[in-house]
Amino acid sequence: MATVGERGLIEHIRRRLPPPPPALVVGIGDDAAVAMVDRGTLQVLTTDALVEGVHFDRRFSRPPDIGYKALAVNVSDIAAMGAAPRFALLSLMLAPTLALDDVDGLLDGLLEVAAGSGVTLVGGNITRSPGPLVVDVTVVGSVKPRRILKRSGGRPGDSLYVSGSIGAAAAGLGWLRQHGQLGSEVPDDPDLAGCVERHRRPQPRARLGALLGRTRAASACMDLSDGLADAVRQVGEASGVGARIAASALPIHPGAARWFVRQGQDAVQASLSGGDDYELLFALPNRSRGRLRLVERQARGLRLTRVGELTRERHFILERDGGTEPLPAGFVHF
Amino acid sequence: MATVGERGLIEHIRRRLPPPPPALVVGIGDDAAVAMVDRGTLQVLTTDALVEGVHFDRRFSRPPDIGYKALAVNVSDIAAMGAAPRFALLSLMLAPTLALDDVDGLLDGLLEVAAGSGVTLVGGNITRSPGPLVVDVTVVGSVKPRRILKRSGGRPGDSLYVSGSIGAAAAGLGWLRQHGQLGSEVPDDPDLAGCVERHRRPQPRARLGALLGRTRAASACMDLSDGLADAVRQVGEASGVGARIAASALPIHPGAARWFVRQGQDAVQASLSGGDDYELLFALPNRSRGRLRLVERQARGLRLTRVGELTRERHFILERDGGTEPLPAGFVHF
Repeated sequence: MATVGERGLIEHIRRRLPPPPPALVVGIGDDAAVAMVDRGTLQVLTTDALVEGVHFDRRFSRPPDIGYKALAVNVSDIAAMGAAPRFALLSLMLAPTLALDDVDGLLDGLLEVAAGSGVTLVGGNITRSPGPLVVDVTVVGSVKPRRILKRSGGRPGDSLYVSGSIGAAAAGLGWLRQHGQLGSEVPDDPDLAGCVERHRRPQPRARLGALLGRTRAASACMDLSDGLADAVRQVGEASGVGARIAASALPIHPGAARWFVRQGQDAVQASLSGGDDYELLFALPNRSRGRLRLVERQARGLRLTRVGELTRERHFILERDGGTEPLPAGFVHF
Repeated sequence: MATVGERGLIEHIRRRLPPPPPALVVGIGDDAAVAMVDRGTLQVLTTDALVEGVHFDRRFSRPPDIGYKALAVNVSDIAAMGAAPRFALLSLMLAPTLALDDVDGLLDGLLEVAAGSGVTLVGGNITRSPGPLVVDVTVVGSVKPRRILKRSGGRPGDSLYVSGSIGAAAAGLGWLRQHGQLGSEVPDDPDLAGCVERHRRPQPRARLGALLGRTRAASACMDLSDGLADAVRQVGEASGVGARIAASALPIHPGAARWFVRQGQDAVQASLSGGDDYELLFALPNRSRGRLRLVERQARGLRLTRVGELTRERHFILERDGGTEPLPAGFVHF
C-alpha cells in the first residue's frame, strides 16, 4: 500500500464509483459528505476511526465477499426499520500486506450490494493498520415517520412471519469449518453449496422491509442477524409479550436440514439458533392479512412463512411433536 | 467482558446516556436509530463492522482521552463543513482483556465531547475482538444548503485564516514519545503540558464552523487533521489556486516553539507539518471582512490569525526572512 498512500487510494476508490445522484451535494474528497434528503434539508455524514492495529479473518471469504457482507448487514438493519437505505460510509483499516487487488475486491462486493439496494457510497475513512483488515460501514437511510417498523410494536395475537429460509448461513459456516479453504472444493450437494453462499453473501431484504413499511402491514420487525430464536425473543421482550413458535412450520433450508442431521445435530434447534441469515422476522396483526397479500404479490417470489404468534404470557415456547419446550437462545457473537 | 456480554454492555451504555432529545424517534436498542431532522423528514442511522481481531495503542492516552478524541475528530470534520453536528454512532471492537472500567472511561470522554457540541449518541455496534480495541465513530450533522463550507470555494486574493494555534499536538506527541508513560510526570513547562493536552484532547471548533457557515463569511474551510501545510494545499488544489503563507504570521503555540527548538527542529516547518491540531483553516474574500468581525465577536475569545492568501499561480509558497521556499507537505498517517 505504501506505493499508493491514503490519498491515492481514496482517489482510486472515487474513480471506481458510479456517477453520484443529484441529491449528493458534496461527495468523497471533502471533510464530510453532504446529501439533500428532502427539499431544503441536507444531511452531512462523516466517519473516522482511532485505530493503530487491527486484524481480520479471511480464511473462508474472499475480499469481495467481505465487502459484500459489510454493506449487506447494514442494509438489512435499515430494511428491518421499514426504511430505504440511501448513503453509506466506509471505514477501512488496512494491513500493510494487503494488496490493492484485495481493496478492489472489497469494493467490488460492496458496490454490488450498493447498486442492488439503491445505496450511494458517499465517504469514509482509511487508516493504516499494522495488523490485518477491518471494514466498518455506516448506512444512512430515510423513511416517512408513520412507516417505521420498530421491534416494540407487537401485540398478543399477532402472527409471526419470517422471510426466505433459516439455518443456511450456520450450515454453510459449519461446512466451511470442516472443509473450507479458499480455492478448495465446494459442497457436492447444491443445496449445501447454497448454504455456503448464504454465509458469504446474505441477501438483505431491502425490498421486503420497504414494502412492510410502506403498506404498514407489520406491527414489529427485526432482522435475523443472531438467528430466529433471538429475534423472536427480542421482538417479544421489546413489545412486552411472549411467543409460541411451531417447529413444523419453520422454513428450514433443505441443505441446512441435511447438514445438521449429518452432524448429529437437532436441525430445528440449530436452525433457530444459527446466526447470519439476515432474513426478516415481522409481526402481523390479524387486520393486516389483506396488506400481507399485497406485500407478497410485490415481493418477487420471496417466501413469507407464518411460524407462530405473539402471546400475552411472557414465555418463549417452541411447540414440537405435540409437546412444548423453551425456545432456544440466539447465536452469541460476543 | 464475558460476564456482561454484548447486550448487557449495550444496556449498560444506554443507562449512562443523558435523556434523548425529542427529535430522537428511535434510539439505542433497535436495528437502527431514527431521528427527525426537519418536519416530516426522518433520518435513519446505523453502523456495523466486520471484524475478527483488532488492536489499539494505549501507551500515551487513557480510555477517556481515546473516547474524547474519537468523537472530537468527527465533530471537527462536521464543523469544517459549516454544519451543526447532531447524532453520533459508536462502533466499538473490544478486546477480551478490556475492563468494564475502560469502556466506561471511553464513554466518559466521548460523552464529554457530545455534551459540549450538542451531539446525541444514537446507536452503534459492539463486536468482540481477540486483539485490542478499535473505536470507530460516525457523526451525522445538518446544515442549510447555502451555508455549506467546501474546500473548493477559495478564489485568488482571498485571505487565509487559521484558528487558535498550531504545532501543539505534534510537540505534545513528541514529548510523550520521549518521556511519556501513563502515570509518569507531565512537562514542567505549562505551555508544553498544554501541548500534551492538545494531543490527547484536541478541541473541535464546532462553534466557529457553525458561525462561519451561518454568516457565510468564508469561501472555503477545512480542519487541520493533517497539519496546516496540508490543509492549505488541499484547499488550494480543490479551489484550483495556489497560496502564499507568511512564516512570521504563523500562530505557533509557545510550548511547541520551545519544544521544536530544543529538539533542533525548524519550528516553522514542524508546526506547519504537524498533524492532529484540529483547528480550522478558512479562506476569506475581501468583501467578508465585516462578517469576520461579527464571527470574531461571537467566537468567545478564539484567536483567528491571517497567515497568508490564495494566489492565481498554482504554487504553494512559504515566505520567510525576505525569501521564499516551498510550503512543506503535510503529516502522513498512512
